[in-house]
Amino acid sequence: MRILVVGAAGTIGSEICNALEHHDLIRAGRNGLDVSVDNTSEQSIKEMYEKIGKVDAVINAAGGANFASITELTPALNERGILSKLKGQINLVLLGHNYVNDGGSFTLTTGVMMDDPIRMGASAAMANGGVKAFVKAAAIEMPRGIRINSVSPNIVQESWDRLGSYFVGFTPVPASRVALAYKKSVEGAQTGQNYEVY
Amino acid sequence: MRILVVGAAGTIGSEICNALEHHDLIRAGRNGLDVSVDNTSEQSIKEMYEKIGKVDAVINAAGGANFASITELTPALNERGILSKLKGQINLVLLGHNYVNDGGSFTLTTGVMMDDPIRMGASAAMANGGVKAFVKAAAIEMPRGIRINSVSPNIVQESWDRLGSYFVGFTPVPASRVALAYKKSVEGAQTGQNYEVY
Ligand SMILES: NC(=O)c1ccc[n+]([C@@H]2O[C@H](COP(=O)([O-])OP(=O)(O)OC[C@H]3O[C@@H](n4cnc5c(N)ncnc54)[C@H](OP(=O)(O)O)[C@@H]3O)[C@@H](O)[C@H]2O)c1
Ligand SMILES: NC(=O)c1ccc[n+]([C@@H]2O[C@H](COP(=O)([O-])OP(=O)(O)OC[C@H]3O[C@@H](n4cnc5c(N)ncnc54)[C@H](OP(=O)(O)O)[C@@H]3O)[C@@H](O)[C@H]2O)c1
Repeated sequence: MRILVVGAAGTIGSEICNALEHHDLIRAGRNGLDVSVDNTSEQSIKEMYEKIGKVDAVINAAGGANFASITELTPALNERGILSKLKGQINLVLLGHNYVNDGGSFTLTTGVMMDDPIRMGASAAMANGGVKAFVKAAAIEMPRGIRINSVSPNIVQESWDRLGSYFVGFTPVPASRVALAYKKSVEGAQTGQNYEVY
Repeated sequence: MRILVVGAAGTIGSEICNALEHHDLIRAGRNGLDVSVDNTSEQSIKEMYEKIGKVDAVINAAGGANFASITELTPALNERGILSKLKGQINLVLLGHNYVNDGGSFTLTTGVMMDDPIRMGASAAMANGGVKAFVKAAAIEMPRGIRINSVSPNIVQESWDRLGSYFVGFTPVPASRVALAYKKSVEGAQTGQNYEVY
């Protein structure tokens, strides 16, 4: 399969690429190895799809949100999660379905914080919850047999040094285990799922 | 209690006002009976809170999203749900918690479409899912004992003539039953909940 991976160079993205290395991968990111894209820009997403042409699967493992307590979170700080983690992912679908071959798939990324909330996590949780619900609803009317799922990673071991203090009492999982859920989404036949890798 | 109801004149909002009529209600909307607010504008939300001062509870029953199939949904069409149903509600919290008395509450509105998807419903589902996850995460760090919940109405009987064709096979519920969940949120003691009135 020809597979676009946005965020391919990231902690999770690089393990996704390992798990799918037998496919023809197009590695994307703002400084992408194969193609550059800023998924917070509709124009940039459009240009990327025009450049790469048809694919069998689109995976997104990019997107951020600001960490802030609810009393510190402002509409402006919340905007990053909306632009990047929420709209960035959804626009890859809205602007990209015409570039996905019949029977292909989209796989987006949510995260454990929506199910098992942590301090300072409301903005990221909001974006995750929006993506999960979008995926479930979009799945019932994707055209030409195209499937759509999301993967909800727990905090991963590789990010523990940087982020572990936010995730008190969590058991981190290896990014390689998270990557298998993306493989299941791409090579399996399910749709409308949010794979929890907790 | 002194309770702000945004969307008070609406189908659901008017039943909320009936269920809470023994309280001191401030009825808001773009053409609000007691105070005007456009919750898609941060400035308008700020001005409303400055005008009304302290309250014990904030309820929101306003917000819309465009209905469009996934192949017709554009980033621009999706924006209405983000601005109105998602950010409109969340900004009432982010800009309003200082106006809520100790031990007070916020109650937002989601909807059945995130759990039981319908055609053309992906944008609304996205916004609903974002609000639900935000509420769950925000609840653990709201200041001064302030609680936050959401109510997820099924399609209501009063909207069936207008919207029923989208909700094939659903059993509509009376708006008065939906209103009881807002009452539970305001007068009860739970937090972080999404009350499904299905
Ligand atoms: N790490 C965890 O423990 C964890 C847990 C749960 C969920 N998640 C979620 O999983 C996703 C990936 O996490 P991660 O830790 O692997 O992130 P990461 O290591 O920071 O990698 C993100 C990748 O995405 C690219 N990227 C960043 N912004 C972009 C943009 N606007 N457009 C296109 N590409 C962009 C980056 O490359 P460039 O710099 O070249 O753009 C980078 O390669 C995120 O949504 C994160 O919230 C992570
Ligand atoms: N009806 C249903 O069956 C159903 C089912 C599930 C979920 N919901 C959700 O429940 C909420 C209320 O639904 P509804 O059917 O009661 O709606 P509605 O009858 O259209 O009433 C909405 C009310 O909100 C006010 N409003 C609209 N836009 C506003 C804005 N930008 N700022 C402030 N106020 C605004 C309107 O008054 P003004 O014109 O004066 O602004 C109106 O009174 C919506 O989020 C809807 O998606 C409804």
